[in-house]
Amino acid sequence: MSPSRIVTLLTDFGLNDVYVGIMKGVVAQIDPTLTVIDLTHEIPPQNIIAGRFCLINAYPYFPEGTVHVAVIDPGVGTRRRAIAIQLSTGYLVGPDNGLLGGLIKQQEIITAIELNNPDYWRTPNPSTTFHGRDIFTPAGAHLARGVPIEKLGTPIDRDTLADLSLPDPKQTKNIIAGCIQHIDRFGNLITNIPGDRVAGTSWTVTFPTSPRPTVIPSRKTYGDIHPGSLLTLIGSHGWVEIAANGDSAQLQLELNWGAKVEIHLDANSTP
Amino acid sequence: MSPSRIVTLLTDFGLNDVYVGIMKGVVAQIDPTLTVIDLTHEIPPQNIIAGRFCLINAYPYFPEGTVHVAVIDPGVGTRRRAIAIQLSTGYLVGPDNGLLGGLIKQQEIITAIELNNPDYWRTPNPSTTFHGRDIFTPAGAHLARGVPIEKLGTPIDRDTLADLSLPDPKQTKNIIAGCIQHIDRFGNLITNIPGDRVAGTSWTVTFPTSPRPTVIPSRKTYGDIHPGSLLTLIGSHGWVEIAANGDSAQLQLELNWGAKVEIHLDANSTP
Amino acid sequence: MSPSRIVTLLTDFGLNDVYVGIMKGVVAQIDPTLTVIDLTHEIPPQNIIAGRFCLINAYPYFPEGTVHVAVIDPGVGTRRRAIAIQLSTGYLVGPDNGLLGGLIKQQEIITAIELNNPDYWRTPNPSTTFHGRDIFTPAGAHLARGVPIEKLGTPIDRDTLADLSLPDPKQTKNIIAGCIQHIDRFGNLITNIPGDRVAGTSWTVTFPTSPRPTVIPSRKTYGDIHPGSLLTLIGSHGWVEIAANGDSAQLQLELNWGAKVEIHLDANSTP
Repeated sequence: MSPSRIVTLLTDFGLNDVYVGIMKGVVAQIDPTLTVIDLTHEIPPQNIIAGRFCLINAYPYFPEGTVHVAVIDPGVGTRRRAIAIQLSTGYLVGPDNGLLGGLIKQQEIITAIELNNPDYWRTPNPSTTFHGRDIFTPAGAHLARGVPIEKLGTPIDRDTLADLSLPDPKQTKNIIAGCIQHIDRFGNLITNIPGDRVAGTSWTVTFPTSPRPTVIPSRKTYGDIHPGSLLTLIGSHGWVEIAANGDSAQLQLELNWGAKVEIHLDANSTP
Repeated sequence: MSPSRIVTLLTDFGLNDVYVGIMKGVVAQIDPTLTVIDLTHEIPPQNIIAGRFCLINAYPYFPEGTVHVAVIDPGVGTRRRAIAIQLSTGYLVGPDNGLLGGLIKQQEIITAIELNNPDYWRTPNPSTTFHGRDIFTPAGAHLARGVPIEKLGTPIDRDTLADLSLPDPKQTKNIIAGCIQHIDRFGNLITNIPGDRVAGTSWTVTFPTSPRPTVIPSRKTYGDIHPGSLLTLIGSHGWVEIAANGDSAQLQLELNWGAKVEIHLDANSTP
Repeated sequence: MSPSRIVTLLTDFGLNDVYVGIMKGVVAQIDPTLTVIDLTHEIPPQNIIAGRFCLINAYPYFPEGTVHVAVIDPGVGTRRRAIAIQLSTGYLVGPDNGLLGGLIKQQEIITAIELNNPDYWRTPNPSTTFHGRDIFTPAGAHLARGVPIEKLGTPIDRDTLADLSLPDPKQTKNIIAGCIQHIDRFGNLITNIPGDRVAGTSWTVTFPTSPRPTVIPSRKTYGDIHPGSLLTLIGSHGWVEIAANGDSAQLQLELNWGAKVEIHLDANSTP
């Protein structure tokens, strides 16, 4: 795998400050011919789950050899490790706090290293609060311009890499229980239940904890239901999603991250 | 016209999610040497009028041969067509729902095609909810790298292309009646009355429906009036605009999209 | 110094409109091979102090010869000058209203010119409200592609360049009095007291005007204190900062831009 010369950035820094602009300046100081692409910088502050989810969803849509630098880092300046991972089709750079855990679990790991070689930091005395600028972005830029990952630090045991413990969805007869793992800008509720669990069937969704009990029917697409009405479908990211045609499902249902979801598979359409 | 190798993106996806990042990844998978420029991704959700207005305003400032991919697409997954248009100075790609209608009306159409050739989709089985990723962005990237538009699908009759029916401004003696067609971040109110209707004259503006009746005088620039005061001028986009020096005209006047506006041309300065 | 072919943009235009997209189109019309990097476009409207602060902080992280175009311009269309400055390591372009004053004060000025040569404007009749598009961005793009700064206009006396008069921090015995000069997205309060005034010591911070009197201890990093607790540290930008571990210091302290700060140096650790 040769590097694609593309560095993506995913952070919770927002765009109100110059933090992200500075990261791009640091890339340009190392190699101004690299391409930088923003995944998003609006991850809710310190929400590692949301960042982990976004990274899993974006990864397949980038060229082989792309370097993904992800910085949601509440433990910056403490002993959590700074790491880089070579997968079979790309690179990940970020804190070892679970943010990279989703992809690590999914993909084959070729090499995992701790970013402890100061030759590839921006400065031998990195800030204690902005490793994005001083450690992660320089590592990403060096990988993208072809520096072998082994040079950036010492190998680490892949079994020690952090991940978050998210409850896997559980199926009992024709009910699959899961939770809301992401809410997008439109108020669409994205569950942690993979679409292939329901593909080819019809189903309904209920929310055991919603203040407004509702049975939500499955449809192929938003336009297949009256404006304002709720529906459930397999979202473009591949997860079961709850949406409202032209409206916010989140506001209608008054639900939040982590809320419990139940999928009821239609008896006649269950395989 | 040879392609400029530039793809612009205009959507209502916001920047909180990785949707826009994914579209850029899809461009890079097709050709990593193309340049991608964001017009904006903060069009109010499903507000086709606002997207149409922004596209008209941005178009003249890009190099000949630029490909503009616009996705405000409440009908995604239904039967609305996905289209690409070759104008004499650039390309448009998006849903056939009126979003591209403003430019189609203004400019000469060379070719209009329906994007129904799956060879130029990202996958033969596109998502029913994210044509931005699977159909529009791939089409834009292929046009930008030089694929002839005819290859992307079958020609369509330009008389069948959708547009929105916006009321044109009406002039009776020295009064021009129109409406607010856009409100920008500063709270400036942009009317649908072209600046050349008032150029070289002075005029006042009234709002028949504002809870706070006011007569607003015309000025050359924001600084020509006391801080906080309202003025009307020809905005940088070429439309008559109502602003407040260092303040929000929207908040002062409590008006919204679509509100009625009246321009009163000064008797002595009317040509 | 040869130009780096990079243009950065810093504005208060926000990302809801196509203003920023248009500026990038204007760069591409002049030279599509230039690289454009956003510093931020979310400076609070017309807040010259905030823009000036962000520019100082971002400048050192860009390659030599980078052109920084900054547009926070409440006086657009009035007689304030449009200027370009060549420093020893980069270029600045913007209105002469104090926005560029921080870097002008810090760095060596090689040349300062007024942008009054219409050959390098986008049009001989620039809009009275959008010099970002018609004067500043074209100037930046021409500098970035190698046009000598002298061609863009006539030299001006550097002693006439505008700056803001910000109160310098004052030290009396072991107390340093200053103010909050910036508040970032996380609610971190950034003072105007340079970190080197306290480096190697420990100290506490008090806020004479906070409704909630508190003595805030210094720490090395966010993680060195209980979640939710307040701390003061030297931020990644080099200024003394007040933060809360995993929380917003701004919300806890109910303070705003300009609020007074006192640093109390620990007697035993003062040099």
